[in-house]
Amino acid sequence: MKKSFRSSCPISSTLDLLGDKWSLVIVRDMLLFGKQTFKEFSQSQEGIATGILASRLKKLETFRLITKRKLPENQKENIYLLTKKGVDLAPLIVEVAYWGDKYMPEYNLELLPLKGLKADKASLIKQIQNNYNSIFEKTIR
Amino acid sequence: MKKSFRSSCPISSTLDLLGDKWSLVIVRDMLLFGKQTFKEFSQSQEGIATGILASRLKKLETFRLITKRKLPENQKENIYLLTKKGVDLAPLIVEVAYWGDKYMPEYNLELLPLKGLKADKASLIKQIQNNYNSIFEKTIR
Repeated sequence: MKKSFRSSCPISSTLDLLGDKWSLVIVRDMLLFGKQTFKEFSQSQEGIATGILASRLKKLETFRLITKRKLPENQKENIYLLTKKGVDLAPLIVEVAYWGDKYMPEYNLELLPLKGLKADKASLIKQIQNNYNSIFEKTIR
Repeated sequence: MKKSFRSSCPISSTLDLLGDKWSLVIVRDMLLFGKQTFKEFSQSQEGIATGILASRLKKLETFRLITKRKLPENQKENIYLLTKKGVDLAPLIVEVAYWGDKYMPEYNLELLPLKGLKADKASLIKQIQNNYNSIFEKTIR
């Protein structure tokens, strides 16, 4: 998968990769809701089309934000897991959530497992990452 | 300008607004480089097409992330300024920059005025916002 980068700026280059309406929604589903399968991603309330989902998963895999594997007990279904590079999007995801919570009051932060820790963002981010890492460990063990 | 929101999640709603390759590049140019005019935005190294630039500025204005005005001494040229809602994207922009710096080592954080303060993100964000606010004050005074 070819990806062209517009400049040597790390902001625009990150947006070359993740600047679309879906990539970070998929990362949200993995990181905050522990989703792992194509079926789980396709059932999110945003209603992603399966073609777009397949293409975004492929892109995230190509750039090593996620890995695809099969579990020994189920050789039919792929499961998708965030790599460290993907889990390190937690601070960015949290800022997206907080900005949306502040400026789109019709949208509801309570829908996300981010409650009660707003004052201490660093702890919240660490908690999200530790939680995901323990899901990861449990899954591939 | 109609904008449809996919769900009541603040993450996906923020991406409905800002999840594209250009909106945050324009915010970067305003916030970190103090750019204010159409001409200045169009001269960024990413080479935004003028039609896309015009449409993104209109969207950012519609959703009150920026305001457009004219200066008394120059009635020909519009200048664009971030609102508080726009300036409050600083934490998100900083996270985008740091993730890009960490995971796209071919891209160069030194290009951005973000040097030396990596350890203290909160101070960096405050400094960026204060700096922008003083540009704002000087411009409209």
